[in-house]
Amino acid sequence: MKNILGREVPDFIEGYGSVKHYEGAFARAGKPSKRAEVRIPKGAAPGGRKLCENLGEALDKLPLRDGMTVSFHHHLRNGDFVTNMVMEEIGKRGYKDIHVAASGLFACHGPLVPLIEDGTITQISVSTFGAGPVPQAISAGKLKKPVILRSHGGRPRAIENGEMHIDIAFIASPSCDEMGNINGSQGKSACGCLSYSYADAEFADYVVAVTDTLVPYPNTPVEISQNLVDYVAVVDAIGDPAGIASGATKVTEDPAKLAVAETAAELLDRAGYIRQGMSFQTGAGGISLAVAAGIRKRMLRDGISGSFGSGGIHGYFTRMLEEGLLRALWDVQCFDLEAIEHLARHDPRHLIMSGSLYGNPENKGCVVNNLDIMILGGFEVDTDFNLNVITGSNGVIMSASGGNEDCAAGSKISLVVSSLMKKGGRCIIREKVTTITTPGDTVDGIVTDKGIAINPRRADLVEKLKDSGLPIVDIHELLRMGDELGAVKDHPEFGERIVGVVEYRDGTVIDVVHQVL
Amino acid sequence: MKNILGREVPDFIEGYGSVKHYEGAFARAGKPSKRAEVRIPKGAAPGGRKLCENLGEALDKLPLRDGMTVSFHHHLRNGDFVTNMVMEEIGKRGYKDIHVAASGLFACHGPLVPLIEDGTITQISVSTFGAGPVPQAISAGKLKKPVILRSHGGRPRAIENGEMHIDIAFIASPSCDEMGNINGSQGKSACGCLSYSYADAEFADYVVAVTDTLVPYPNTPVEISQNLVDYVAVVDAIGDPAGIASGATKVTEDPAKLAVAETAAELLDRAGYIRQGMSFQTGAGGISLAVAAGIRKRMLRDGISGSFGSGGIHGYFTRMLEEGLLRALWDVQCFDLEAIEHLARHDPRHLIMSGSLYGNPENKGCVVNNLDIMILGGFEVDTDFNLNVITGSNGVIMSASGGNEDCAAGSKISLVVSSLMKKGGRCIIREKVTTITTPGDTVDGIVTDKGIAINPRRADLVEKLKDSGLPIVDIHELLRMGDELGAVKDHPEFGERIVGVVEYRDGTVIDVVHQVL
Repeated sequence: MKNILGREVPDFIEGYGSVKHYEGAFARAGKPSKRAEVRIPKGAAPGGRKLCENLGEALDKLPLRDGMTVSFHHHLRNGDFVTNMVMEEIGKRGYKDIHVAASGLFACHGPLVPLIEDGTITQISVSTFGAGPVPQAISAGKLKKPVILRSHGGRPRAIENGEMHIDIAFIASPSCDEMGNINGSQGKSACGCLSYSYADAEFADYVVAVTDTLVPYPNTPVEISQNLVDYVAVVDAIGDPAGIASGATKVTEDPAKLAVAETAAELLDRAGYIRQGMSFQTGAGGISLAVAAGIRKRMLRDGISGSFGSGGIHGYFTRMLEEGLLRALWDVQCFDLEAIEHLARHDPRHLIMSGSLYGNPENKGCVVNNLDIMILGGFEVDTDFNLNVITGSNGVIMSASGGNEDCAAGSKISLVVSSLMKKGGRCIIREKVTTITTPGDTVDGIVTDKGIAINPRRADLVEKLKDSGLPIVDIHELLRMGDELGAVKDHPEFGERIVGVVEYRDGTVIDVVHQVL
Repeated sequence: MKNILGREVPDFIEGYGSVKHYEGAFARAGKPSKRAEVRIPKGAAPGGRKLCENLGEALDKLPLRDGMTVSFHHHLRNGDFVTNMVMEEIGKRGYKDIHVAASGLFACHGPLVPLIEDGTITQISVSTFGAGPVPQAISAGKLKKPVILRSHGGRPRAIENGEMHIDIAFIASPSCDEMGNINGSQGKSACGCLSYSYADAEFADYVVAVTDTLVPYPNTPVEISQNLVDYVAVVDAIGDPAGIASGATKVTEDPAKLAVAETAAELLDRAGYIRQGMSFQTGAGGISLAVAAGIRKRMLRDGISGSFGSGGIHGYFTRMLEEGLLRALWDVQCFDLEAIEHLARHDPRHLIMSGSLYGNPENKGCVVNNLDIMILGGFEVDTDFNLNVITGSNGVIMSASGGNEDCAAGSKISLVVSSLMKKGGRCIIREKVTTITTPGDTVDGIVTDKGIAINPRRADLVEKLKDSGLPIVDIHELLRMGDELGAVKDHPEFGERIVGVVEYRDGTVIDVVHQVL
């Protein structure tokens, strides 16, 4: 059937199951829900030993089986060794049909592809992807079941309410003691906080801390505590620091991009969003940080002090905290070394939040609901303001929602900020996007170098900006400009087979991804 | 029937239900268990408001009903206003048959007695009691159902596994923002951490933060986060600072008590427990602190640095941390102003732990299992080393287990340290204790001014100490000495009616308390 956004989504998807169809961004908000029962297969007794000298010893103790779900977090980003290490060992032991429930997978996870090909891994769930061999293999139809794409809030929602049961969670642990008290901000593979793994640690049957830095008991501080952890496996290295964090995230130096960012900041100011107690979130991209720079400039000019910066934290935010422009940071992952180092200094204003606290729409109030301004990234925007952050225009999976749809839904204003024409000559505006990730109902506008389009749903915003002098145009006009500029149009050939199921943050299916032939 | 400790405990107790009989301190250790499903009656949507101008407004919004279970924490100790305030309002509204599931009740909770008498409150569960009107009323048979006495680890166990379902948790919140991010270390009623309330916040259907200090969003740091909180009710004062914490806990100055403490420290040293990486817990009583002083002296003498101090944290522990004698503190409640102030300084070595992390025997490893030395308090010890920390020798309920039985079970050595003759001329050693709280299987010895008795179960300890020159005697000898010194014997007259059910930390019933006629 066609869902309310006009996307063709069947009622049943092989390898996924029955579909709950998307019914609107807030159709399920405020409804009763639950957190699922948690099994504790084995309690502890005084004198119990959790420490395993290597990963193999831990795996020997675990009830491995075909068809199990094992989970991983992605705070080591493109430097993660743990997912490959564990899956290769499980593959060697001959287990099949494994569901890899990772919060994210990156280019470094190429070694999973042979395991997909040989049937060790037949299912994957993620909330973020770095472009690379795994999503390419999925788009090519190599994975037996469709990948399930959830947001950063949707993943803990599914774990916590029991929709996605984890048999064994493997937690890459930058520092850990022998009882399983873990933190991410210390050790040779320090990555900052471990927020996305908190739901895994709490709801999995078994939890294994995989660490390269065993510290004396008790580890301080503690992010994941010993009462949740079954085993501690010591390995040589859990990650490659070079891949974990870029040294520093930097504001773009491209004058065209700087101009777009400046326009976005001006829009936010004119519309009244740069005000006392304001909060905001940007990605770590150069253009997003340039918007942050524009916001900062206006805050300094007008003597404004904000409330919080949230999401992936970077040096730009920690510096604004130190300048007194922000009262606090809500950190769900550290994007750069500056953020990691700041977290390791234990400033109480640098708050760690779980993925559930960040964006789970089913709990009693996630942080995105308190967000004023959200700067969104994305590959394509359609004329209904629906946003695609999953597939490239060639149809191949390149990324996943991350916090995009959570923040778009929660924030008071969400803007896509981008050059109109992207690399390769494609226009960001499309009549229809290849895949819908973030519904247009939650996207308030797009700011480009060729003009600004405001979602007509936001009549209040249109009214506020009508005399601003800002170059506001209809979104169809932006599409037309793209055509005039000779926008490249892709015509990917899709097969019948569904290789990806895009869950909206509330667990309904908003779209599907087909195999690229 | 008589249980394995020889206590008469029926299979069914009116107002409590079917009894699981105590079968040994570790009979259930390492068994599978679960954390119960949690209901979220109402999720949140962006723009949702939690703030209530007063308690009445919050109560208006809650589905109050006869027979509900409401919970409270006791971190404000004898200065708590919230329990009385909420229960008086519930009483005024005419609700009956309420179960008050408080982590502790103190002398300040006298206003609950009229509510017990008029049937507003018909059931109470606690894990700590301060002697006073409420336990007196219970002992006199005024409460309709028997009070359930659990340990600090047993209470979160019962909440987490669903044995004790909480309908509404009222969290006294020394500081809170409008979304319900709570901490206990700031505000005019600062009390330190709020550990005992964490399970309530996580497992109750509804959670209400009751605060007298509303701070800008977001509160920093956060102990209980907004995703768990339904409403924030602002009141004038949640507590009386004078009752929350004593100004400073002090080592006893009584030479006799100092001598006992010194003997205990010498025993620990001779038996090899004062060693590199050691951990220990004491109460905040003058004699316990004197043992800590004796331990500290030996650590300094021998260049020993310890691992952690745990439990209720006091200035003696924070100073040992600052001296480098301890690497960390595991804090479950702050016993004095020094500890509260230290916690407010955000030293990452000062770790907060939940009650479950502290002592729940059903999780994957609580902190008491890592404890070396535990100094126990108590009213009576019998010749099988069973310990009573609940009833006075007159049969009246005076206190509750607190962490006593958790730490006795988890630690490598647990010692009662006391004068042989207590106030009023009673001997601490009795043939049979009035009530068993902590089974003798987990109590390793008692150190008194008239001699030391070691539990014969600890043959290793007896062997280690045989040439120590310490005054080690059979426990029956201590009993005899007491008799020689003219020990006062009480002969309380008990009724048939059971007014208290003493649950061991694993949820079995270890003893019952009868009405005092």
